[in-house]
Amino acid sequence: MSDRVRDEVDILGLSHVELLVADLDRSRRFYVDLLGFTETASDADHLYLRCVEDRQHHSLLLRRSPHAGVGHIAFKVAGEDALDRLERRFKALDLPTRWLAPGEERGQGRALRVQDPLGFPIEYHAAMEEAPWLIQQFHRHHGAAPVRVDHVNVLVPDARAGHDWYTEELGFRCSEYTESEPPEARIWASWLFRKPTVHDVAVMTGPGPAAHHVGITVKDEMAVIRVCDMLASAGHGESLERGPARHGISNAFFEYVRDPDGNRVEFYTSDYVTSDPGLKPIRWSLDDPRRQTLWGPPPPKRWFEEFMAVESIVDGQLQPVAAPAMRALPSYIRD
Amino acid sequence: MSDRVRDEVDILGLSHVELLVADLDRSRRFYVDLLGFTETASDADHLYLRCVEDRQHHSLLLRRSPHAGVGHIAFKVAGEDALDRLERRFKALDLPTRWLAPGEERGQGRALRVQDPLGFPIEYHAAMEEAPWLIQQFHRHHGAAPVRVDHVNVLVPDARAGHDWYTEELGFRCSEYTESEPPEARIWASWLFRKPTVHDVAVMTGPGPAAHHVGITVKDEMAVIRVCDMLASAGHGESLERGPARHGISNAFFEYVRDPDGNRVEFYTSDYVTSDPGLKPIRWSLDDPRRQTLWGPPPPKRWFEEFMAVESIVDGQLQPVAAPAMRALPSYIRD
Amino acid sequence: MSDRVRDEVDILGLSHVELLVADLDRSRRFYVDLLGFTETASDADHLYLRCVEDRQHHSLLLRRSPHAGVGHIAFKVAGEDALDRLERRFKALDLPTRWLAPGEERGQGRALRVQDPLGFPIEYHAAMEEAPWLIQQFHRHHGAAPVRVDHVNVLVPDARAGHDWYTEELGFRCSEYTESEPPEARIWASWLFRKPTVHDVAVMTGPGPAAHHVGITVKDEMAVIRVCDMLASAGHGESLERGPARHGISNAFFEYVRDPDGNRVEFYTSDYVTSDPGLKPIRWSLDDPRRQTLWGPPPPKRWFEEFMAVESIVDGQLQPVAAPAMRALPSYIRD
Amino acid sequence: MSDRVRDEVDILGLSHVELLVADLDRSRRFYVDLLGFTETASDADHLYLRCVEDRQHHSLLLRRSPHAGVGHIAFKVAGEDALDRLERRFKALDLPTRWLAPGEERGQGRALRVQDPLGFPIEYHAAMEEAPWLIQQFHRHHGAAPVRVDHVNVLVPDARAGHDWYTEELGFRCSEYTESEPPEARIWASWLFRKPTVHDVAVMTGPGPAAHHVGITVKDEMAVIRVCDMLASAGHGESLERGPARHGISNAFFEYVRDPDGNRVEFYTSDYVTSDPGLKPIRWSLDDPRRQTLWGPPPPKRWFEEFMAVESIVDGQLQPVAAPAMRALPSYIRD
Repeated sequence: MSDRVRDEVDILGLSHVELLVADLDRSRRFYVDLLGFTETASDADHLYLRCVEDRQHHSLLLRRSPHAGVGHIAFKVAGEDALDRLERRFKALDLPTRWLAPGEERGQGRALRVQDPLGFPIEYHAAMEEAPWLIQQFHRHHGAAPVRVDHVNVLVPDARAGHDWYTEELGFRCSEYTESEPPEARIWASWLFRKPTVHDVAVMTGPGPAAHHVGITVKDEMAVIRVCDMLASAGHGESLERGPARHGISNAFFEYVRDPDGNRVEFYTSDYVTSDPGLKPIRWSLDDPRRQTLWGPPPPKRWFEEFMAVESIVDGQLQPVAAPAMRALPSYIRD
Repeated sequence: MSDRVRDEVDILGLSHVELLVADLDRSRRFYVDLLGFTETASDADHLYLRCVEDRQHHSLLLRRSPHAGVGHIAFKVAGEDALDRLERRFKALDLPTRWLAPGEERGQGRALRVQDPLGFPIEYHAAMEEAPWLIQQFHRHHGAAPVRVDHVNVLVPDARAGHDWYTEELGFRCSEYTESEPPEARIWASWLFRKPTVHDVAVMTGPGPAAHHVGITVKDEMAVIRVCDMLASAGHGESLERGPARHGISNAFFEYVRDPDGNRVEFYTSDYVTSDPGLKPIRWSLDDPRRQTLWGPPPPKRWFEEFMAVESIVDGQLQPVAAPAMRALPSYIRD
Repeated sequence: MSDRVRDEVDILGLSHVELLVADLDRSRRFYVDLLGFTETASDADHLYLRCVEDRQHHSLLLRRSPHAGVGHIAFKVAGEDALDRLERRFKALDLPTRWLAPGEERGQGRALRVQDPLGFPIEYHAAMEEAPWLIQQFHRHHGAAPVRVDHVNVLVPDARAGHDWYTEELGFRCSEYTESEPPEARIWASWLFRKPTVHDVAVMTGPGPAAHHVGITVKDEMAVIRVCDMLASAGHGESLERGPARHGISNAFFEYVRDPDGNRVEFYTSDYVTSDPGLKPIRWSLDDPRRQTLWGPPPPKRWFEEFMAVESIVDGQLQPVAAPAMRALPSYIRD
Repeated sequence: MSDRVRDEVDILGLSHVELLVADLDRSRRFYVDLLGFTETASDADHLYLRCVEDRQHHSLLLRRSPHAGVGHIAFKVAGEDALDRLERRFKALDLPTRWLAPGEERGQGRALRVQDPLGFPIEYHAAMEEAPWLIQQFHRHHGAAPVRVDHVNVLVPDARAGHDWYTEELGFRCSEYTESEPPEARIWASWLFRKPTVHDVAVMTGPGPAAHHVGITVKDEMAVIRVCDMLASAGHGESLERGPARHGISNAFFEYVRDPDGNRVEFYTSDYVTSDPGLKPIRWSLDDPRRQTLWGPPPPKRWFEEFMAVESIVDGQLQPVAAPAMRALPSYIRD
């Protein structure tokens, strides 16, 4: 990766994610009333949500849809020029692109939608309406009081290609990665960032293009435990899929939750600052279970096998997935 | 204190406290919406509140009144017989007593009201309606999620007399006490319990009879910090009177709060279990500032000087106070 | 249970447990250096440990032994007379008893050892040497900073018999219990206490007499998470057997740990106060998984099948176990 | 501020601070044994300390000296070239500069020392030896387990000049600032960053050049409370100068501590991510007490008046300070 690419592309980090849900009222009860997201706006087809640390209109967008899945994944860039430069790059690669006018996505300025070479519906924008900052509105914090929509983990058949795309073409840095053992020694997953945390996006080997989960930063471990306690007592115990435990990768303490539509969100806390470009990526072996869970039981098999389909920006249909190009399950997961 | 007294009197611990407030709606916003008490019932003149660990109808009772202060302090006893035995003891001492019929205080069985020799309006009862237990209704916990109304600290002109009354006549044990230095070596304050915590009641030297504060147990230090953060952001910053800090006495982490009427409540956590009768009372010197605050600044002077008047059970009037019989201020509090 | 029994027997609660370990140095590294117990004393065959809230010489006693297991389980009683009354009761039942002279167990006064009708080696004592209280020696707290040895869970072939023994003959109260479904409706497990917490001892259906685990109270959920993090990073990841999660029964947040000898200890926090005798025992159904884990995965099967043998007070040999009298596995545990 | 300056200067953030102490053994007991810094290396005149999240040789350097104070403040830059560009800038301004050879400060590559126009001894370096990362060595975390040396707050007679120097000449961004009321409307203090937190350095109005405090990030509020508890119980209660409380500015929860030499360090947690260049600086009024303490008592007066002298890079002498150019005390601090 060259500094030239970083400057040209100038992505600041993940901005927001659009999840597809069947019933906005049910989702409001889950995400707003229970988990503690704040509603900035809504209409018949959308809920625009933000977190405690957000100063922008939305970081989680729920869209009414007959199917679950991911509508698009949005990154913020440093200025309007960067959008034009990005359009040129995608056009040069013969990839589908589409402009959204300011306000076409509520609260957002001009935006570029693309289908990236990995098959994902990606959006880039430079401007979004401000919303009141909730960080010191402590009396309004409730539930898990989400701090930030931190990252998206995606599944791709070839994680190495995903790693290369993000690092070489989009100027992301790699904080940690998983590799199969020599002699194969092939990248199985990679954690990639522009904002100074462990990741904005991770690419993992699996059937793809598909989304694995959206990561939501919460303040501390107790907020993760509150997620478990609240969901269990509110009758959503079955939505607690994995955790709580600590990841080896990222050092984060986490719980994976399936929302009422089956979309997977991770409540996540206590990773580390990555702003020093001198930090070397940390390598983990695919078959080291500490990689996924520093302690405690390994993930259930369905954690590997179930995913969120992603829409096409061309026709709005959910996209088919291709089989992974290497072994998708670590050896410590049994059939 | 003899075991005979403990058995005869058979007080289980503090049951509830009645605070006087001017505006029930304002108090509901403060105690229920903001601080997280749960409303069991209400009428034009009362709010009946309970905490997360309560299984009884109410542990905090707010009564509409033209003046702030304390209506009564209630203890639960082990059975109806104990009430009759208590009535006989108070009558033998020529002290005012009065029976409340079951339901006269909503949700409560037959109750005995007395004016105790220290001048306080005390209630004893054995039975109270059950209310749904909230301990595992985590999705309903909010604000500070109060766990228990733990104790009342009262001011009396002669703390030694207060200590003797509770230990010798009512079977309380002393967990910790403050004494002036020799040669005076006089009890300045005493922490007294029947339930197995540091106190149900503490008697402290000051103008009395008066109530100093009602202690509310919260789950942990973070709940105390949330009280501060929430009250500040909700525009009640001026109600934060002292703390957060750790007491030497009781080891509790605390914040003192003045409610909208000026009544003083303490949010309190992490004292210790006192069920072993072999534990020796811990002595503190009046002029040792670590007694009050193990670290951090000493209390503001008004913490010593301002108090809640208490009603008379005879005429319902707020009672005058008498001057303390010994120095009321430790040497580390400056004029 | 009559009050007469409570008064006659006058047990205050669990005092300490003796665990058998092969290598005291290895155990010191595990329990003292890593987990944060404090060593009061030691000799060639014993480590005497205490917790942050203890004021007594020891609450966990490790004895060098060629086999793992439990040497004895000790309860503290209210006075020397209670020991004599207990001896008479056990002799009347023709059960083995044995006196220990003061100091025969270091730091402890006169003690009565008995083999109880369930087959367990039980000790009763009234006096123990004081040790410096560590509660406000915060700079010495480290690791999990254990607060108290809280309870012992034991396995017995007939949990109903265990429940009856403790409630009818020893004056314990029941806080919660597990029952099989009607028409059987048989007690499968019972949580029993004298000190005012959820339990000093629980009896559970299984091969017995055997000990299932020793429960160690820690301050809060973060201390449980520290146990996991520390054991994993110190190379003891395999000792993390179950958790962290929240129990339905007791409401406690927990992690089960196997010590280097395989003895099972539970790090446990946030149960509730049980001092009000009016609290009704809470019933759980054997086949309700929320009973064991309010959220998260069910226990691994070995959690049910592996146990600690207990010594005989007669010959010091580990005792054989008898098969349970009813189904020992809930229906949600698969083979 | 232009992007050109940011690229040319290319400062990554605060690297380390050198504090002057009289007795290294005493300081080791305070910083390492008690507070939980990790010692990377030491010699007769130096202690090289690092934090849990550091991957570099040291972030806090203690140097034996007859006087307390600050030896130098070091920033890390993105490459060796940046050092040469910085030298040219300082020479162009006729300011003293001096090169340190690699290893002249142990563990550090080539470094440039300068006396900046505000009078501070500043060091710039691009390389430092790696040290083992402690983030997942949980069993070695103890005390406050410091995460990072986060920032230095300095006193200058003219905060506006300080703000301009950092933003216009060194490419820092401003996250928050304090201003006197109109019509004066003059910058009283400014929080300035290159790494994506609230600050690497803050300039505040006062006698200068002088250092006010070094900010140490800890994991969460409980770590700040542990600092208070530990210092109090270890006999350092008098070193707790201010807090714990929450700042309005930065949102951080904090405690100010005076080390055994009187140097002031702040334990600090829960500020926010500032990597989005679109975030607008937040303005606070000088006389709004919520600015300094969102809740709780205002700082003691000595917090404003006492400071750490800073050395000159020219002669190693402590530098004299000049009086502030505007009112140094907010109106809510009384004489």
